[in-house]
Amino acid sequence: MNLRIPGPTPIPDAVAQAGAAPMINHRGPEFAAMMARTTAGVKQVYQTQNDVMTVTASGTGVMEAAVVNLVEQGEHILVISIGEFGDRLINLVNIYGGKCTELKFDQGLAADLNQIESTLKANPEIKTVLITHNETSTGVTNPILPELAKLVHSIDGLLIVDAISSLSSVPVKVDEWDLDVVLSGSQKGWMTAPGLAFISMNERAWAKNDRNKQPRFYFDLRRHQRSAVNGQTPWTPAVSVWFQLDHSLKLMLAEGIENIFARHARLGQMTRSGVKSMGLKLLATEGVESNTVTAIRLPEGIDGERLLQVAQDDFDTVFAGGQGSLRGKIIRFGHLGHVHEPDIEAGLVALRGALAKVGYKG
Amino acid sequence: MNLRIPGPTPIPDAVAQAGAAPMINHRGPEFAAMMARTTAGVKQVYQTQNDVMTVTASGTGVMEAAVVNLVEQGEHILVISIGEFGDRLINLVNIYGGKCTELKFDQGLAADLNQIESTLKANPEIKTVLITHNETSTGVTNPILPELAKLVHSIDGLLIVDAISSLSSVPVKVDEWDLDVVLSGSQKGWMTAPGLAFISMNERAWAKNDRNKQPRFYFDLRRHQRSAVNGQTPWTPAVSVWFQLDHSLKLMLAEGIENIFARHARLGQMTRSGVKSMGLKLLATEGVESNTVTAIRLPEGIDGERLLQVAQDDFDTVFAGGQGSLRGKIIRFGHLGHVHEPDIEAGLVALRGALAKVGYKG
Repeated sequence: MNLRIPGPTPIPDAVAQAGAAPMINHRGPEFAAMMARTTAGVKQVYQTQNDVMTVTASGTGVMEAAVVNLVEQGEHILVISIGEFGDRLINLVNIYGGKCTELKFDQGLAADLNQIESTLKANPEIKTVLITHNETSTGVTNPILPELAKLVHSIDGLLIVDAISSLSSVPVKVDEWDLDVVLSGSQKGWMTAPGLAFISMNERAWAKNDRNKQPRFYFDLRRHQRSAVNGQTPWTPAVSVWFQLDHSLKLMLAEGIENIFARHARLGQMTRSGVKSMGLKLLATEGVESNTVTAIRLPEGIDGERLLQVAQDDFDTVFAGGQGSLRGKIIRFGHLGHVHEPDIEAGLVALRGALAKVGYKG
Repeated sequence: MNLRIPGPTPIPDAVAQAGAAPMINHRGPEFAAMMARTTAGVKQVYQTQNDVMTVTASGTGVMEAAVVNLVEQGEHILVISIGEFGDRLINLVNIYGGKCTELKFDQGLAADLNQIESTLKANPEIKTVLITHNETSTGVTNPILPELAKLVHSIDGLLIVDAISSLSSVPVKVDEWDLDVVLSGSQKGWMTAPGLAFISMNERAWAKNDRNKQPRFYFDLRRHQRSAVNGQTPWTPAVSVWFQLDHSLKLMLAEGIENIFARHARLGQMTRSGVKSMGLKLLATEGVESNTVTAIRLPEGIDGERLLQVAQDDFDTVFAGGQGSLRGKIIRFGHLGHVHEPDIEAGLVALRGALAKVGYKG
């Protein structure tokens, strides 16, 4: 099966096997040594000296962690949304008592820095900004993180970045860009099963966390930080997924993160070229297409559900459909993590074949 | 390594290997089929027709889920604690705005039904009661669940039971005893890696959940229930751990849950007899000793840290130390999940040898 969805992603055999190692004591020296190794490795990929915590949860878990640790009750918050996952941040801020200003951009567009600047000027009490780096639902990567961080810091604010489906596949220079809080998840570019998610915190973020009275426990990052000092997690971690992460980080650092980024850029380009050569259109506007997932507009008259079914049944390839209001309007072709040219070629062949079978004349 | 801690527990090779299967789409038909199978299997082990949800988190995650879904802000709550994990429930209730009455029993004791009854009589506004079934920190199993459920229902209340380290190893008859909400975790008797946790909800619990205004998202059980209808989880699940659970449930149902309970009763007895034959004393009072973990009082003058170290280094056996105020006063010998007579024998040999090495004359 060619798993061409934007996560969970295929896992290298050696990584999958590493997860089958005998269970260990999560409060013992073997776990502490592994945690030290993986934390160092994750920080290398994050390109940061900030604390990075590994939490047993899906990516949504660290989205919630960011909100309950860093959004105060009644605080005025700006959430910039370019799709489903941005909307999830809005949802979280509202649920946890933030006063949310939503700055939404149409599906396929990236966020516009000028509009963000105007919004912040019009709402000077906003000191916390949340944004999705790579919007998995539309195949768009926001290119403005360095400028946005400068803007947010110029008003003494805090920037929280959901980089779940980008960090480890495309450059997210946490320290160089001065990103305060950054999220990622094991089942994306990290070539590991789902179950672990990452969150980095700099000093600005810890200071805000310290004064925040929002109730929190499982996702209380102070508890995670305190346990990390002893080479532990506050609650029992997903040890077998952690074994996988430990192995996948070795592979990633051996390949080199710049090489990984170059590979994803190449494969993103290759996917887009192949898709366009079939006469298909992308959802993302030119210049902001994601190098981890390509959202393809379904041609007039093509039934998306049937296309996905035919691709799976007859071409052994799994693509993802659209989410929310994009259901039935797009399909999504994932190209992140353990993926190489032959996987993309096979994916394109499958897409072409499935399209023909469901009546696309292209 | 003989992993003799009360979780994570050793995993059968076939289960560990099952986790290394190729990754699948968590929104596809393979996952839906697996989820249907495991949910049916988990319900068999729970002995319930109630909804049981599988959440990607540690056991503490479903403790939080129970509280944020079922404790209302300002509601007067009774938490019965016989140790560290009961205290964690108290902590959660306080953090999430419940008005908590704590009924604590000394370490080694089980909860006393008469005292619970008096407390409920004295506080007629209490309608929600939380209790730990098997207290992992002291090696005590509360034997009063059926009577407690009757008592709580007689005042039209709701009973939430943390059975994380008991359910699947010792009988917890959710329907027969009419337990409203019951928690368990994959890394205990389920012979699976950590990362998944379970929570059952009956109609009474859903009704309370519906009217509860407590903010919640990741652990919002209504979202889990809605997704389950489509064979999905609301957030990306720990798929590889789920593969393991799918396999371990086959082994468990093949062995038969009554046989599993009988095995744990036998191994619990065997552990206690062996420990006592060394002249050691248990923390648990007679009659309420846990069949999943035995807490052993350290003899006068014996250094617990060193004992654990020697057991690991020289006898290839990992025991757990005491938690909280029991640190340095006890060690804990786990006997749940994938464990059989030879594992207990080897554990007892290791304990005897390590004790001799650290100067115990017994």
